[in-house]
Amino acid sequence: MPRIRHLVSVDDLSISEIQELFNKAKDFSKDLRSWSHLCPGRISASLFYEASTRTRLSFESSMQRLGGGVLTAAEMRTSSAAKGESLADTVRVVSGAYADLIVLRHPSEGAARLAAEFSQVPVINAGDGSHEHPTQTLCDLYTLWIEKGELEGLDVVLAGDLRYSRTIHSFIYALARFCANIVCVPHRGLELPDYVLRRLREEYGAEPVRADASELGEISRESDAVYLTPAKPHQLSLFTDSRRLRVDRVDAVYMTRPQTERHGESDEIESYFQLGQNAMSAKPLREAIVMHPLPRRDEISADLDDDPRSLYFKQAARGVPIRMAILAHLLGCLELQASPPDVRTRLFPIEVGHNPCPNSSCITNTEKRHQRLAFKLTSRDPLRAACGYCSQEIPIRLVGCSTTRHYHPRDSASARRIRPDHLVFFRDEAQATALGFSATR
Amino acid sequence: MPRIRHLVSVDDLSISEIQELFNKAKDFSKDLRSWSHLCPGRISASLFYEASTRTRLSFESSMQRLGGGVLTAAEMRTSSAAKGESLADTVRVVSGAYADLIVLRHPSEGAARLAAEFSQVPVINAGDGSHEHPTQTLCDLYTLWIEKGELEGLDVVLAGDLRYSRTIHSFIYALARFCANIVCVPHRGLELPDYVLRRLREEYGAEPVRADASELGEISRESDAVYLTPAKPHQLSLFTDSRRLRVDRVDAVYMTRPQTERHGESDEIESYFQLGQNAMSAKPLREAIVMHPLPRRDEISADLDDDPRSLYFKQAARGVPIRMAILAHLLGCLELQASPPDVRTRLFPIEVGHNPCPNSSCITNTEKRHQRLAFKLTSRDPLRAACGYCSQEIPIRLVGCSTTRHYHPRDSASARRIRPDHLVFFRDEAQATALGFSATR
Amino acid sequence: MPRIRHLVSVDDLSISEIQELFNKAKDFSKDLRSWSHLCPGRISASLFYEASTRTRLSFESSMQRLGGGVLTAAEMRTSSAAKGESLADTVRVVSGAYADLIVLRHPSEGAARLAAEFSQVPVINAGDGSHEHPTQTLCDLYTLWIEKGELEGLDVVLAGDLRYSRTIHSFIYALARFCANIVCVPHRGLELPDYVLRRLREEYGAEPVRADASELGEISRESDAVYLTPAKPHQLSLFTDSRRLRVDRVDAVYMTRPQTERHGESDEIESYFQLGQNAMSAKPLREAIVMHPLPRRDEISADLDDDPRSLYFKQAARGVPIRMAILAHLLGCLELQASPPDVRTRLFPIEVGHNPCPNSSCITNTEKRHQRLAFKLTSRDPLRAACGYCSQEIPIRLVGCSTTRHYHPRDSASARRIRPDHLVFFRDEAQATALGFSATR
Repeated sequence: MPRIRHLVSVDDLSISEIQELFNKAKDFSKDLRSWSHLCPGRISASLFYEASTRTRLSFESSMQRLGGGVLTAAEMRTSSAAKGESLADTVRVVSGAYADLIVLRHPSEGAARLAAEFSQVPVINAGDGSHEHPTQTLCDLYTLWIEKGELEGLDVVLAGDLRYSRTIHSFIYALARFCANIVCVPHRGLELPDYVLRRLREEYGAEPVRADASELGEISRESDAVYLTPAKPHQLSLFTDSRRLRVDRVDAVYMTRPQTERHGESDEIESYFQLGQNAMSAKPLREAIVMHPLPRRDEISADLDDDPRSLYFKQAARGVPIRMAILAHLLGCLELQASPPDVRTRLFPIEVGHNPCPNSSCITNTEKRHQRLAFKLTSRDPLRAACGYCSQEIPIRLVGCSTTRHYHPRDSASARRIRPDHLVFFRDEAQATALGFSATR
Repeated sequence: MPRIRHLVSVDDLSISEIQELFNKAKDFSKDLRSWSHLCPGRISASLFYEASTRTRLSFESSMQRLGGGVLTAAEMRTSSAAKGESLADTVRVVSGAYADLIVLRHPSEGAARLAAEFSQVPVINAGDGSHEHPTQTLCDLYTLWIEKGELEGLDVVLAGDLRYSRTIHSFIYALARFCANIVCVPHRGLELPDYVLRRLREEYGAEPVRADASELGEISRESDAVYLTPAKPHQLSLFTDSRRLRVDRVDAVYMTRPQTERHGESDEIESYFQLGQNAMSAKPLREAIVMHPLPRRDEISADLDDDPRSLYFKQAARGVPIRMAILAHLLGCLELQASPPDVRTRLFPIEVGHNPCPNSSCITNTEKRHQRLAFKLTSRDPLRAACGYCSQEIPIRLVGCSTTRHYHPRDSASARRIRPDHLVFFRDEAQATALGFSATR
Repeated sequence: MPRIRHLVSVDDLSISEIQELFNKAKDFSKDLRSWSHLCPGRISASLFYEASTRTRLSFESSMQRLGGGVLTAAEMRTSSAAKGESLADTVRVVSGAYADLIVLRHPSEGAARLAAEFSQVPVINAGDGSHEHPTQTLCDLYTLWIEKGELEGLDVVLAGDLRYSRTIHSFIYALARFCANIVCVPHRGLELPDYVLRRLREEYGAEPVRADASELGEISRESDAVYLTPAKPHQLSLFTDSRRLRVDRVDAVYMTRPQTERHGESDEIESYFQLGQNAMSAKPLREAIVMHPLPRRDEISADLDDDPRSLYFKQAARGVPIRMAILAHLLGCLELQASPPDVRTRLFPIEVGHNPCPNSSCITNTEKRHQRLAFKLTSRDPLRAACGYCSQEIPIRLVGCSTTRHYHPRDSASARRIRPDHLVFFRDEAQATALGFSATR
């Protein structure tokens, strides 16, 4: 039996697989109703631990258009979860014989990764808290690709709240991976977080540079800092030609809603920007398509709805063919020529000590039963690690080696020499000592 | 591409279309399970903004019996609507690629009309507040037709709460349209409202006359006024023969439940009538079938359940074949010979001033985003207009002309001369003045 | 038309039918996806008056794997039931044309029996309060049968809360019917109730005897009384050989969760037993499979999850093929060679006096409209009767004869001579007199 493929993160697909899925989706979209021979007899289960009707209906429509069946659990919280069943157990049961694929929506970050570990069938992450929502990201990329014919070299403006929406962050990483140029026009105070910029730099070689927004008009008015993240270092040198650092032609404007539910008290968004005809009349935006993940509230004015550049409703509609391609692929009903990603991030189990993940909404902190702990090493020097489930950076002060039973300061050479599978994280000396570790002589 | 047909009101279908749908439904009902070849690959979406399990299951069964698929959003309020998405946006997304037809249930009157305007696929109104519920009406007519072989000339008693249920009003208009005689036996204080009587008179030529209920027995005991609404003026003259104004033979008794949730404090219904064997033993009712839209509470006694005249459970069952016919027709899978209605009520947009609709549960008053305003002219002299969405009469005191920028009293000759597409409604002079209109010299 | 078959209780199927269904389920499980030709065009309706996602998904998966369609009403309480519709009316409507089979989950005991009486299509009881859940029982038996090759003579340990879960009681009766030996290892204070032991004795000839648990180890530590219920009297004599009364080899351990929601204040379960590797290392349990109806909380330790003896996830998965067999059979799409049960418990309607059922969560006490009352005679001497819906014993002090209009003490010879269909139950003399009955001279 071939290895089960999951879609927890966009990175679970190789670039060439994504390209091939785009081509399949394009085929599907010619007539959505003529593909019911692809997955007959297959059943997908929508396990939604929080309501998201749009996402659920999009998946369920896609599955039915492929000729498959659907099991719906739209309000998991009110049922067996309330009786105290662990996510792991629910997934084991549903993947046992009920369903051939699981579509999971969960409020805890990392939930889909945990589910995938316990599932006998493919798991698709339909949103795990503010962590990832890979089919949304793929739908966004697909729309760009359909409209512009390619992704490499596109200039994509991301406007609004770039700070709190990690699904936007996933989109940004994906744009970088596909070598698009990202023009960040954040609402004041809602800039991209440092860890996103660092990951763009370290993993994708995209060094952000300050850009000249003078021609962007209204869209940049509420923004203190417009910066451009060219996809590749060699492009960066192109951009040092100051003419190119001026944003004078944009392919797409991706507008985001304010993630007010995640804002702190100090975030002021009284004057959150509303994208309308005025803003879109700026010269660099003349041929830019307007995108939005929906639902929108007031951040896109209704006066744009009939503008041919407004793609947000088509973007939502394209969720169906792209999800059809993903479902058919993961169900084994659609062979791809492309190879899966070569390198996969290795997770190291955490078996000693407390859970070092600082994210209170991570599945490792919200799930009481049958949780697992793991980390991934994101850098050796300086030593940096992230939670294996929610990807949030682990604050490290002391590390130990499970073999030598010694502990070391994070920045010491000794710390860097510990084998990753021997690494133990400590809050402080007291904890290290309590667990039987000692300082080095 | 042919124009998309919606079913927001029964009036969206011509009489001959309805007759043809009845014949198709009769075919379907011979064996409900043998029509799955009609709509394979088609998907309907149940968007229910309030719970109505019976109606939803009836539609979803019908769709599946036609071989189609179903998307269910049984509790829309808890999902994206809670994030503040407009009905218009939801409909645009769902009609984009998810579904080939939308079945909408919404607590706001006029919601289905609004949805139809934004939808790329047919919308069926499965109840918009207390406004319309056309498939229920068609199911009721179909049951009468099946049992009695025709509709014209039938004598149909409507008993109970005739005041608050506008779905009953829709049924009454439909009976008038099909030339049935309507015998109103309202519970005391729950008589038909004046605007229904007026519409019966003005649009259907059915002038209500006081009828002699002496032979009706128990069923008329709680009623102050039994009146008969013959379908056509020429019939009215027949009825002036006082012998015929005595109700001495009834084809059907349509019992309604008290709409207690809409009753005011002054409505006393302690002694709401219960239809039972006693009442049905009155001579004029000997061959009358008993109908009820269900769910019933106590207004029909269980002692009638096994009576062969009791049709209410069969009536509910017939919701399936009639909805199958409607779904197949709107999906374009069932060609009808009959032509659509010739004249369609014209809606005039309201672009100046406030929303004149006085109905606080109209979609124009409950939907904050992407609402539209429109009116229809129901009479030129006296000048009368109704909300284009919920159909409620607009209280008019002053009207203006958007061209001349003058305002006039409603009953003036000047007012009547304004072109409908130039009409503006004002609450009072102050408002007219504020909007830059002046009184005529 | 053949008589409609329902599955309200496991007793609605004969032993040979169950055996045949097991064989069919085994066929199905070879490839669950290749049976979609069995029930095309058939529709089952899930009417769930309380949430039970696992059970619902299992049925809906089974139905879809048979090629049928599904109507889902996962939260019936929030819909027409809230408007006050009776269960009887809901069932009459749904069974009219919407669905070809009803799967009912209801919090009131006896609800499924009532539903079956009003339904035009087969009703499957998917749990009625704490009464019966026959497909769970059949799934449990099927798992035992698959793993052990037979049921007769198996030694099955039932551990934990044996007092409050009547679905466990159903399983115990079924084990007795299939001639398995039941080894009860109840948590202290949560022993099998007397009425279960009596029924085991009277209906299945299984006399419980104290057993020697010395070799069972940890699993019996929290238990005051381990007793063995050999299936047949002739086996009992075998067991009087004291060597056999020692439990020294067990085929299966069926672990149950504490039914805390049904515990009284006096039930202490602070130290509810947790089954883990330690407990399962006892010699008699070496080859025992571990079963659990799920969801589990902490009563099975995660350290057992990867043990090959742990069958609880496979057990849940087997719910699909066994439910497929049941659905196909009841829908008339799978003919069985076996005959239905010969004798069926006769229900006698209760038409005089109050409802004698003492169970406040019985459907006869919770359903206000269209309820029925009936009893079954469980013993003539002493005179004992049970509610015809929830099966709970009726406390009898006085009985009357509806023909002679006399009443008698329960234990009198006169009482025992009354024909069952003439029996009337009285709380006390006052009530008997009030209903026009007199004491015998």
